[in-house]
Amino acid sequence: MGTTAAVLGASGYAGGELLRILEGHDGVEVIAAAASSKVGTSVAAHYPGLASLASSKFIAVDEALACGADVVFASMPHTESMALFGGAPGSGVKVIDLGGDFRLTDPQAYARWYGSSHSAPDTLASWVYGLTEWNRQGISSASLVANPGCYAAASLLALGPFVEAGMIDTSLIRVSALSGVSGAGRATGSEGLGLDFASMDNNSRAYGVTGHKHIAEIEEQLALLAGPDEVVVGFTPHLVPMVRGIVTTCTAPSTSASSTSALISILRARYADEPFIRVIGEEAFPETKRLNGTNLVEVTARFDEHTGGVIAIAAIDNLGKGAAGQAVQNMNLMFGFPETTALVSTGLVP
Amino acid sequence: MGTTAAVLGASGYAGGELLRILEGHDGVEVIAAAASSKVGTSVAAHYPGLASLASSKFIAVDEALACGADVVFASMPHTESMALFGGAPGSGVKVIDLGGDFRLTDPQAYARWYGSSHSAPDTLASWVYGLTEWNRQGISSASLVANPGCYAAASLLALGPFVEAGMIDTSLIRVSALSGVSGAGRATGSEGLGLDFASMDNNSRAYGVTGHKHIAEIEEQLALLAGPDEVVVGFTPHLVPMVRGIVTTCTAPSTSASSTSALISILRARYADEPFIRVIGEEAFPETKRLNGTNLVEVTARFDEHTGGVIAIAAIDNLGKGAAGQAVQNMNLMFGFPETTALVSTGLVP
Amino acid sequence: MGTTAAVLGASGYAGGELLRILEGHDGVEVIAAAASSKVGTSVAAHYPGLASLASSKFIAVDEALACGADVVFASMPHTESMALFGGAPGSGVKVIDLGGDFRLTDPQAYARWYGSSHSAPDTLASWVYGLTEWNRQGISSASLVANPGCYAAASLLALGPFVEAGMIDTSLIRVSALSGVSGAGRATGSEGLGLDFASMDNNSRAYGVTGHKHIAEIEEQLALLAGPDEVVVGFTPHLVPMVRGIVTTCTAPSTSASSTSALISILRARYADEPFIRVIGEEAFPETKRLNGTNLVEVTARFDEHTGGVIAIAAIDNLGKGAAGQAVQNMNLMFGFPETTALVSTGLVP
Amino acid sequence: MGTTAAVLGASGYAGGELLRILEGHDGVEVIAAAASSKVGTSVAAHYPGLASLASSKFIAVDEALACGADVVFASMPHTESMALFGGAPGSGVKVIDLGGDFRLTDPQAYARWYGSSHSAPDTLASWVYGLTEWNRQGISSASLVANPGCYAAASLLALGPFVEAGMIDTSLIRVSALSGVSGAGRATGSEGLGLDFASMDNNSRAYGVTGHKHIAEIEEQLALLAGPDEVVVGFTPHLVPMVRGIVTTCTAPSTSASSTSALISILRARYADEPFIRVIGEEAFPETKRLNGTNLVEVTARFDEHTGGVIAIAAIDNLGKGAAGQAVQNMNLMFGFPETTALVSTGLVP
Repeated sequence: MGTTAAVLGASGYAGGELLRILEGHDGVEVIAAAASSKVGTSVAAHYPGLASLASSKFIAVDEALACGADVVFASMPHTESMALFGGAPGSGVKVIDLGGDFRLTDPQAYARWYGSSHSAPDTLASWVYGLTEWNRQGISSASLVANPGCYAAASLLALGPFVEAGMIDTSLIRVSALSGVSGAGRATGSEGLGLDFASMDNNSRAYGVTGHKHIAEIEEQLALLAGPDEVVVGFTPHLVPMVRGIVTTCTAPSTSASSTSALISILRARYADEPFIRVIGEEAFPETKRLNGTNLVEVTARFDEHTGGVIAIAAIDNLGKGAAGQAVQNMNLMFGFPETTALVSTGLVP
Repeated sequence: MGTTAAVLGASGYAGGELLRILEGHDGVEVIAAAASSKVGTSVAAHYPGLASLASSKFIAVDEALACGADVVFASMPHTESMALFGGAPGSGVKVIDLGGDFRLTDPQAYARWYGSSHSAPDTLASWVYGLTEWNRQGISSASLVANPGCYAAASLLALGPFVEAGMIDTSLIRVSALSGVSGAGRATGSEGLGLDFASMDNNSRAYGVTGHKHIAEIEEQLALLAGPDEVVVGFTPHLVPMVRGIVTTCTAPSTSASSTSALISILRARYADEPFIRVIGEEAFPETKRLNGTNLVEVTARFDEHTGGVIAIAAIDNLGKGAAGQAVQNMNLMFGFPETTALVSTGLVP
Repeated sequence: MGTTAAVLGASGYAGGELLRILEGHDGVEVIAAAASSKVGTSVAAHYPGLASLASSKFIAVDEALACGADVVFASMPHTESMALFGGAPGSGVKVIDLGGDFRLTDPQAYARWYGSSHSAPDTLASWVYGLTEWNRQGISSASLVANPGCYAAASLLALGPFVEAGMIDTSLIRVSALSGVSGAGRATGSEGLGLDFASMDNNSRAYGVTGHKHIAEIEEQLALLAGPDEVVVGFTPHLVPMVRGIVTTCTAPSTSASSTSALISILRARYADEPFIRVIGEEAFPETKRLNGTNLVEVTARFDEHTGGVIAIAAIDNLGKGAAGQAVQNMNLMFGFPETTALVSTGLVP
Repeated sequence: MGTTAAVLGASGYAGGELLRILEGHDGVEVIAAAASSKVGTSVAAHYPGLASLASSKFIAVDEALACGADVVFASMPHTESMALFGGAPGSGVKVIDLGGDFRLTDPQAYARWYGSSHSAPDTLASWVYGLTEWNRQGISSASLVANPGCYAAASLLALGPFVEAGMIDTSLIRVSALSGVSGAGRATGSEGLGLDFASMDNNSRAYGVTGHKHIAEIEEQLALLAGPDEVVVGFTPHLVPMVRGIVTTCTAPSTSASSTSALISILRARYADEPFIRVIGEEAFPETKRLNGTNLVEVTARFDEHTGGVIAIAAIDNLGKGAAGQAVQNMNLMFGFPETTALVSTGLVP
């Protein structure tokens, strides 16, 4: 008998991607798919391809939690995870939360960036930040994992090696990010907020250029690598006309590096053993399309002689390494499966 | 008898857009369309919609120059304008060059950014930089106008008011730009360099993240506004899956502003009388789609309390305000036509 | 003082395209823009590019009708035009209806295809079917014009010459049509019916493959050309991932033609003097992109030796010749303006 | 030791998809990837995601054939397979050809549709047509399998059940098909034939509307089901702006059916045990996006009372069931693997 899983928020984009990935995982069986807005409706009608759940119906969150699954994936609107897991989760159950409720350790930072106080501040310390490449040990032994935000995952994977190596001025980090529309979530996409095809095709725009919540976790995680140095991140996201994919282009003044080859060497060294990180050399740049559907990360860097700056760039699938793929990678670690189980690194080309 | 025009490089994207716009200009007649690679072939076969040139053929550049047109639009590969106009253009003829050969006044800057010496450095001072909103007087009386680069136009229109007002630290400007594929030119788009539909759809990537030639003109033009302050610009372009459109997101530390409303007021004041500039308030952001086919610019700004920075954002059609539209706006000024003649500010929606 | 116009349904796609086109019409002033769902809101907020209506607000339909405009364009949901104009429209006012309420002359056909009885069957005979190329005389002297459906316009322009010439078996016509998403209307596009970007990108599907309402007007109009022959049309539309554009591929057994050149000659002869019809020869096929924003039609035909059939193909912009462009062409005729006023035949390329 | 495979034409779209699918097949090892134009270059540079071939180079076709692979997949330009396999393939080796050289059994039909005589007409009878759902037995015991053309696969899967049941007039079949750009092949996509992003975005067009080669195999295969009845197929393909995906909409006069439910019952009965066929009921239509990357087929049908016709519709991924997926399904049968091995039926959504 394998590991059993419940997926909360199963009708959303990340929830659907979890179901798709877990269908290919021989060691895990999804025994509950919860979706508040679709309770009682057929999973197959929503996801016609999912053979393993062909005869299942979406159930309520409470019902899903009562199923006794070994692992609960929660991909729900902001504050709903806090309400569910802010008390003590049932003993024995492991939780991987894909939302933002438990990503920060500092309740004050939470209040500042999320605009209201955390309802269970004392529990924040129980959660482990789930970016595998920077916290594999912690995740392996964790019961409660807070999966990174999509922009944060890409930004941290690009910047981390240079902060760790003390090569950039962490007080002047600027991140410009591009995202496809699935980053906004399925509910948003249906609400007529300019994400219909006729509005979005051939259209690009910046949005939320100040105060994005992912800044908080980027700063908190980089601070762990930066030692005493101040970490300040400016972050500007853009919406571009594609479905999946994130590119983060991160700049900061260099404090020691003075060549692109040195920067790429740092990346190669840091990520040499990482199964999902593909370091791109001087000949090319990370791009999104070939990563769609995978848990892969492409990363590169350049030294800009003109400004004396480091430019670190990463690309991911926001629903892969930026959400469901990363969550399954964490689950594999937490339950002792080989880390790459059910996670592919070959996207559709073309 | 109206003004006569010759278009050099008429089979390219910007050349074609010039023909399209000029067809709607009652005061101008295109008497020569030159395209080296298509000499002798029918213009109508290349541009089936152009009624005014339905019976014309593409001719050679030399032949076009001998036609005695009142104005020559040159949209040609790098260094070809230099060769043609580096000597003395014929007296009486006015030239609007859409390439990069005459945008810089400093020959040394040219050599540094373009990688080789300018072949006619003494003539650089004869050319006027053609960004109308910042040089209307100069353009009106000019015979030789160097049309801005597409990224430069958008960046300068976003940053200019704040540099002029002394509100940002010009030594730390960072620009992140997005562009559709037409920025690469028609020839490039056909060469199998990853711009085919199957490669580009759902794909975004950074490219040329250091050393972009447009940096030189951005810095030179901003320096005119910055007084004694040093101007250093870091610039990173990205290719996104759309045909037309540029977004430039520009950041710099604020030196005096401390609110978004103050920044937007600066933009509104500076651009109050500009027919092609639409200042966007706090409620939204510039976006590309509705600008396609127009000469319009959308611009906004935000103050970022977290970093103490100014974020200035502009969107344009790279073939409109970023090339052919701007060129016609300049021609209108140079020949005494109303500035908006033949230039629309209503794009297709949807 | 020019002609005054009111646009009912001005916040929809066709209504917006009418406002855009009429802004460029020197002889017409839009004095009322009605939109039931947006009464009192700024037109500029909805259409930022429309300088001529920058200070206007959307008003109610009744209010617009009371403005005394010389011409009323009605682009409203099914049955609303019937309710407004089913009685006697005010004397002197001319109406161009872009919906389906008055396109058929036979009340029984209306009931059969639209699923309910017409509320003003006696008025149907007062309306003229507004496909200019096939009814120029009638439109010129009409007060009430029913603009064709988008699919019908393309189908009739492709098939008409061959039916008129008696060259096809009209009892076995089959039309396969492709449409971009704007054919579904703005309201539909925002309703989460699978027209969001994430659902529609890279997605194509047939829909409404039996019983499409446009069949009725195609059959009725072709019957006028077919004489005693029976006309039966099978019609299958498909939704494809683009914003604007329709392609109709029409097949029928040939009764006399036996070569492609003969078919193309028929098209060239029939449309020789038509300003908006571009007949494509054997070297290529109609395509949509270059028609977007224009009132243009591309049409061609092939003889298929294998089946003995005629294949006639047309492409249009569904919001141009398929809606607003055709409506303005009709208005030009009805008011004595040159027929091409304000209508362009050069689309954006690329 | 598992089954070994060689892929000829490995740098093309179908070849790449074969490599991607086979990487996930536990029982098969690709020991040779041949690509004439890339001999000696790294497979990883072309397909960065393919871990299993990360250290391999593309080799020549002859070299690949000499590797002694158990199965050869050939995905090469027209006539190249004929040259290679027109003589006797090496004993023991099994060949799955994805091109058109061996799909027809009638050399005269070959000459008529392909425009030149077959160079090895006597060998045609040795090849089995590889549409699994209609020839599972034959494929299981075959050594030489001719994989169906992409349009043919979709058309046959839609029409087959109704021809087999004698429900349509097979002399009047009309197929209208839509395809994404990958149907044209990678080489074509790079050749500047209008498949660059700037040309293809928002663009649809018919092409090759008479004489498409796939007609021949559709007619030959349907004739096997039609008994003495004549089979004539008219076929018109369209190119639409997506990367992968085919929709075929097939019409024919009904000879017995008179309801949609009857037609859908026929489909459900015929395909009840098929692992890759999803019959869509009256509530929806086949669509392409969710099939991308899978070997799945969606199929439905409608009875059109107005014309008395049957409309049968199928959607597939042209590189999946239309090429590489179908090829692997055939290989599974030929080598005794479970038929669904390495083939998924859950595409990326969104």
